[in-house]
Amino acid sequence: MDDLLTRLRAGLPAEALLTDPDVTASYANDMASFCESGAPAVVVLPRTVEQVRHVMRTATELRVPVVPQGARTGLSGGANASEGCIVLSLVKMDRILEINPVDRIAVVEPGVINAVLSRAVAEHGLYYPPDPSSWEMCTIGGNIGTASGGLCCVKYGVTAEYVLGLDVVLADGRLLTTGRRTAKGVAGYDLTRLFVGSEGSLGIVVRAVLALRPQPPAQLALAAEFPSSAAACEAVCAIMERGHTPSLLELMDRTTVQAVNKLARMGLPDTTEALLLCAFDTPDPAADLAAVGELCKAAGATEVVPAADTAESELLLQARRLSLTALETIKSATMIDDVCVPRTRLAEMLDGTAAVARKYGLTIGVCAHAGDGNTHPVVCFDHTDEDESRRARESFDEIMALGLALGGTITGEHGVGVLKKDWLARELGPVGLELQRGIKATFDPLGLLNPGKLF
Amino acid sequence: MDDLLTRLRAGLPAEALLTDPDVTASYANDMASFCESGAPAVVVLPRTVEQVRHVMRTATELRVPVVPQGARTGLSGGANASEGCIVLSLVKMDRILEINPVDRIAVVEPGVINAVLSRAVAEHGLYYPPDPSSWEMCTIGGNIGTASGGLCCVKYGVTAEYVLGLDVVLADGRLLTTGRRTAKGVAGYDLTRLFVGSEGSLGIVVRAVLALRPQPPAQLALAAEFPSSAAACEAVCAIMERGHTPSLLELMDRTTVQAVNKLARMGLPDTTEALLLCAFDTPDPAADLAAVGELCKAAGATEVVPAADTAESELLLQARRLSLTALETIKSATMIDDVCVPRTRLAEMLDGTAAVARKYGLTIGVCAHAGDGNTHPVVCFDHTDEDESRRARESFDEIMALGLALGGTITGEHGVGVLKKDWLARELGPVGLELQRGIKATFDPLGLLNPGKLF
Repeated sequence: MDDLLTRLRAGLPAEALLTDPDVTASYANDMASFCESGAPAVVVLPRTVEQVRHVMRTATELRVPVVPQGARTGLSGGANASEGCIVLSLVKMDRILEINPVDRIAVVEPGVINAVLSRAVAEHGLYYPPDPSSWEMCTIGGNIGTASGGLCCVKYGVTAEYVLGLDVVLADGRLLTTGRRTAKGVAGYDLTRLFVGSEGSLGIVVRAVLALRPQPPAQLALAAEFPSSAAACEAVCAIMERGHTPSLLELMDRTTVQAVNKLARMGLPDTTEALLLCAFDTPDPAADLAAVGELCKAAGATEVVPAADTAESELLLQARRLSLTALETIKSATMIDDVCVPRTRLAEMLDGTAAVARKYGLTIGVCAHAGDGNTHPVVCFDHTDEDESRRARESFDEIMALGLALGGTITGEHGVGVLKKDWLARELGPVGLELQRGIKATFDPLGLLNPGKLF
Repeated sequence: MDDLLTRLRAGLPAEALLTDPDVTASYANDMASFCESGAPAVVVLPRTVEQVRHVMRTATELRVPVVPQGARTGLSGGANASEGCIVLSLVKMDRILEINPVDRIAVVEPGVINAVLSRAVAEHGLYYPPDPSSWEMCTIGGNIGTASGGLCCVKYGVTAEYVLGLDVVLADGRLLTTGRRTAKGVAGYDLTRLFVGSEGSLGIVVRAVLALRPQPPAQLALAAEFPSSAAACEAVCAIMERGHTPSLLELMDRTTVQAVNKLARMGLPDTTEALLLCAFDTPDPAADLAAVGELCKAAGATEVVPAADTAESELLLQARRLSLTALETIKSATMIDDVCVPRTRLAEMLDGTAAVARKYGLTIGVCAHAGDGNTHPVVCFDHTDEDESRRARESFDEIMALGLALGGTITGEHGVGVLKKDWLARELGPVGLELQRGIKATFDPLGLLNPGKLF
């Protein structure tokens, strides 16, 4: 331990090292519940690529595990410290190095906050779509680690679609450059994409070339009330089948709507069984919303309310963005699931989740990126109640099993981390798992990078 | 050899095996010039996944290399046979298994022809964007192998963007399923993307889940004449900087325009230095084209001619699609390069290519996916003239060096194959190359799959 600190200090300024156990303890966890973590030996906050390389060289020499961290807003324990590790926090590497409107790229360090980048590129008439609900806090490096999504995905996809190239410090301190800053490129295996979603287990991203889009028109939204989840899902399928591509298509169930109303007095329709929010950022969003409104009515919507303007639209989105926070107020703890199914199976997923809630006698509120088939069932429970906690975990697992049975995945955008590693093995199967482990061994033969995650 | 055939026959119907040397010799090459190839021991044309597994199990037992092939329209020798190999042609596995307009996916076998799929999904109001110039012949499996592009990429990207999940037969005959049929999914490392563009070196793709989009409106095009390549490139940059996203943005240089006119009497402006074609498939393409027309004039266009209707637009695209064929008529042979640079560097790339042509005393016609910065310099030469052939090869290399110096890549969409493997090492650098070899060894430890390609 003394040796570790001495060696780290040789290549880092004093203020880049945190060793006070009370301070380092606060870096032990991300925002997931029920995920194991250990006490870090030290927290390092480098400001340069060379400092990151020094940390990794030291870690390799001394065989000390390294846990990379962004803003620790993750929901799967992917950034949780392991006992005696070096926590490598990238939050101080937060410079936007370049924004180029002709090449439509930005070059950034990993600690840049998502919202900061989004606003900076907007000043150039550009758009960086990924918008996880933590976007005001989370970092681009963390987004790359988990391939995170958000409300935008039904039209714009997840973070992976926007990462063109990376600079990565490998486990042994060597620097790797992947990908490109061109619009296209197919030279060799796609290592860039391999790092996206790898949860810090293959290397430390220290620089990213990101693709940008032109800023679309401001989006206009509508809200539609449905007498059942199934009816709302029928509308979702009809919207997609008719060739519409909304900029968001979100579903909130009755539990979620009521929780949001209680928290923020938003005046949402309290008695609805399912509320669908749909928006377009097209040249004529009102026309697109009118067509979608008709499809909602045909599917059984009892009320369709288009926003009068972008301010009203923003209010609706605000309600959606408050969903998780609101559901967290129901009980002392929550577990947030992230199952994604083909949208043709969404109704079965929602009905099945409701059945799980009944079976275990629990409140499970669901908000969903319905256009993607990506549901976030939020299991609400009292963590001081041992039996209820057990039932919460079991229901959480049963929801993942349901997702897999419906042809889905255990994680649409949150990642595997600690929370779902048993389930990853189940989703991948033995052949896939063996190959994934082989890739891990190729990049990190000593197993020092974020150990105990994913597999 | 007898042993190989005996064992192959045990799991394959007689008509799936071609052994006549005159016949198998015709499977030795794809469409690239100057690429080494060998004589296959046997050509196998399986119809089922189980047959492919039998071939790979046999190959592994007997340590025989396997070269997977689609329609052999590739331009880098990536499908060239190696001496004594099994050529595994996937063209008979050509079923479209599913088209789902709600989930917006198609599930296909690898031998499905690109144009056949495109037409089949269009009947459901859907769109499969990748459109390499060989689209009437090339297969989806081949497209996945090379991550191929086309005219659509400036708006819709390359094949990689449309591959959600794969079934792959590994070198030892095991079956791997990767990815998903959901809109999103981030469970584990992205093996799907690793296979796309891997040129058959990691496994045999036997089934693919492809993402589809709604069919856009028919595109409307314009042609603009410029007095120099630099002026045309200035227009390209202005179009992208102003936030336009055309459905295609193509450039033909004077040599290409004249060759097309000669071949097909298209009546293109014979004296122009650079012809830009731009199209939109937006709700109001005429308005978008009018804006682009103004930007072209501001950049120095001497003539801007919008197509009156989609039929006229198709004629313009036809001219562009004939470019390679037309350039091939200039001399007895061609070498087609595929360098992609950031679009801010496109003018330098074109001017530099012209300088290379002058230096070597050669005709080099350029057509380019200008919106992507992806140029196809076509070196025209007499292959019976030894000195001219040498100059052709040297100029081809010098064009790649120029692309790398401008921050570009040696291949935007054609792949590495045999043609560019020395150059891949140069683009990736030693660290990247070592990791790519590590991945290859993880998937194919005996090195049986498409040996001698990529690295």
